[in-house]
Amino acid sequence: MKHLTPAAFALSIAVAPGTFAQSSAIDVTSETARSVSPALEEYTSKDLYGGVWTRPDLSARDRSIVTVASLIARNQASDMPAEFDRALENGVTPAELSETITHLAFYTGWGNAMAAVNVTKEIFDQRGIDMEQLPAADPELLPLDEEAEADRERRVQEAYGDVSQGVVDNTRDLLFRDLWLRPALEPRDRSLVTVSALISTGKVEQMPFHLNKAMDNGLTQSEASEVLTHLAFYAGWPNVFSALPVARDVFEARAQQ
Amino acid sequence: MKHLTPAAFALSIAVAPGTFAQSSAIDVTSETARSVSPALEEYTSKDLYGGVWTRPDLSARDRSIVTVASLIARNQASDMPAEFDRALENGVTPAELSETITHLAFYTGWGNAMAAVNVTKEIFDQRGIDMEQLPAADPELLPLDEEAEADRERRVQEAYGDVSQGVVDNTRDLLFRDLWLRPALEPRDRSLVTVSALISTGKVEQMPFHLNKAMDNGLTQSEASEVLTHLAFYAGWPNVFSALPVARDVFEARAQQ
Amino acid sequence: MKHLTPAAFALSIAVAPGTFAQSSAIDVTSETARSVSPALEEYTSKDLYGGVWTRPDLSARDRSIVTVASLIARNQASDMPAEFDRALENGVTPAELSETITHLAFYTGWGNAMAAVNVTKEIFDQRGIDMEQLPAADPELLPLDEEAEADRERRVQEAYGDVSQGVVDNTRDLLFRDLWLRPALEPRDRSLVTVSALISTGKVEQMPFHLNKAMDNGLTQSEASEVLTHLAFYAGWPNVFSALPVARDVFEARAQQ
Repeated sequence: MKHLTPAAFALSIAVAPGTFAQSSAIDVTSETARSVSPALEEYTSKDLYGGVWTRPDLSARDRSIVTVASLIARNQASDMPAEFDRALENGVTPAELSETITHLAFYTGWGNAMAAVNVTKEIFDQRGIDMEQLPAADPELLPLDEEAEADRERRVQEAYGDVSQGVVDNTRDLLFRDLWLRPALEPRDRSLVTVSALISTGKVEQMPFHLNKAMDNGLTQSEASEVLTHLAFYAGWPNVFSALPVARDVFEARAQQ
Repeated sequence: MKHLTPAAFALSIAVAPGTFAQSSAIDVTSETARSVSPALEEYTSKDLYGGVWTRPDLSARDRSIVTVASLIARNQASDMPAEFDRALENGVTPAELSETITHLAFYTGWGNAMAAVNVTKEIFDQRGIDMEQLPAADPELLPLDEEAEADRERRVQEAYGDVSQGVVDNTRDLLFRDLWLRPALEPRDRSLVTVSALISTGKVEQMPFHLNKAMDNGLTQSEASEVLTHLAFYAGWPNVFSALPVARDVFEARAQQ
Repeated sequence: MKHLTPAAFALSIAVAPGTFAQSSAIDVTSETARSVSPALEEYTSKDLYGGVWTRPDLSARDRSIVTVASLIARNQASDMPAEFDRALENGVTPAELSETITHLAFYTGWGNAMAAVNVTKEIFDQRGIDMEQLPAADPELLPLDEEAEADRERRVQEAYGDVSQGVVDNTRDLLFRDLWLRPALEPRDRSLVTVSALISTGKVEQMPFHLNKAMDNGLTQSEASEVLTHLAFYAGWPNVFSALPVARDVFEARAQQ
């Protein structure tokens, strides 16, 4: 590892193509990290911020979506302020950040979303973002792919209708005929949020459905590969190694179609 | 989604049959949620508090036990004050809350229980709940089902005695010949706490044993189904979808007996 | 359960062989725990601190490493100050604590390590530990076992090179040709940290590789068994019961070699 001073590190960020904006929180963390583990500070500046964030196969904006989703999924409130701020600097809109939180209430639990709400309220207040910039509660929904949804619903009803009709009903009415059709996040981004959350919490059972859906929604295989590379740092190597065989099966099945 | 003002929402709570008492924390959260995501606020008031909490197949008191167990299992301290307070309003006794925390020290980790202790101490202080209302450290234990326990112990000893006799011994002495026999929680409620914690943390491997035990202890199938519907909101849809096939297998096996 | 007063408890700690030093945080926690759950306080003093921590098959120093790894892996910041302090009293060096945090950035996620950094900075400041006592960012690395690494790399490249070359490259360059060769943690301790983190987060898929590596690095089977006994308290019984069959398979396969 080559050591970068905070100044050099800030510089490397500023000039790296396609990378994220500098946040004041980074320097603080960098100084604190150095005082406990000089090695960790160097891995952070060189391999995380100066490394994986600058790789070309996924935009800084998408990396911020992946990072935000991972933090909410893992309920890491103390890291949210810096990364949410960075997301806005990287081009994630306030509406997209708002809608990501709403989406993850369902996919990672209500409490995780509420923790993110508290952090985001402060950021929105500081930036003067008001409700006119936020997604409406009741917007006109995107058109439903009736055939795909009928197929999904039939399979879930057959498998689990006798186990919990309440889950089956809410999945249809709240998730696939409402949440997923809200226009505040592009379906491809909504899928990116979902897949990132699943990998970050080790829910590989739901990955085949959602990674396929993500790729149907326009996420490329090279972007999906890079999501794994990125999340290794944020969700830890073991979560990514558990996701790798599932991703491989999805990629191979799609290649044979 | 139909929009409810906070006042209308508070009203809907007050008049809904079998639902929970209003907590001052709800309005605060509601206002904050609206300022970040009007949609999330509406899902919260309409589909969570005005929806799933009012469904008839599980009492508000049981929903509070499920919610408390899920929060402790997921170590979500910031949501604990409002939900613990609500649990007491919904008829969970201080002794039952105390014992739920004790139980989950073993089933979700000591640190999770200690985080819950800190929250609960403040609530008990505010409400003037003193130690006379709490379960004794050394009560007279419930009678042991010697046959069932001998069977459980034999299977675990055979499977894992050579792997970790310490785990096997503590499981027998601390859990099944002590904790599970403490009278401060009905066995059915202790099972409800355990199953809720397992689903909330994705520990489906332990679900067959504990869901069967819960139903042996008096939890009905329709209640178990509704626990899944409820937990989708608190633990996230993916955790519930991982639990559905396990619950189906348990329900089907019991139907064939 | 036999009740111990705090004084008796402190005494039992002081005289128990091979146990940990008394931390001022214990009494506070003990009083608070008693006021919410006298039973939990008694389990804590008798069965956790007075019980599992005093068992002979794993040193207090190793138990502290296991505990620290579990807390970081589960991101339980509120328990870190007392346990990190205890780790230093039990003989874990500041350099080892620093390096454990660095290691777990990769194995449990960057945010978990940063939460641990914040706690550790305060402890290091209080104790006057400065950077000269910490591992260098760029030390001379331990020698690489070229054959074992070539085998590992080939298997991972074949399995996942087409899925995410970025993950494969970073695993080789950052983990196995850098992090694992840093001398600030003995390989056996690095493995102990890794295995403890995997068990604590339910990542059993990675256990066979890392438990074998741990035992190749000198962790004995009786120590590994005792890690399971210890972690039942910190990570919860279900995580340990999910790890037991994996540990059994590893132990049996090694016995047949």
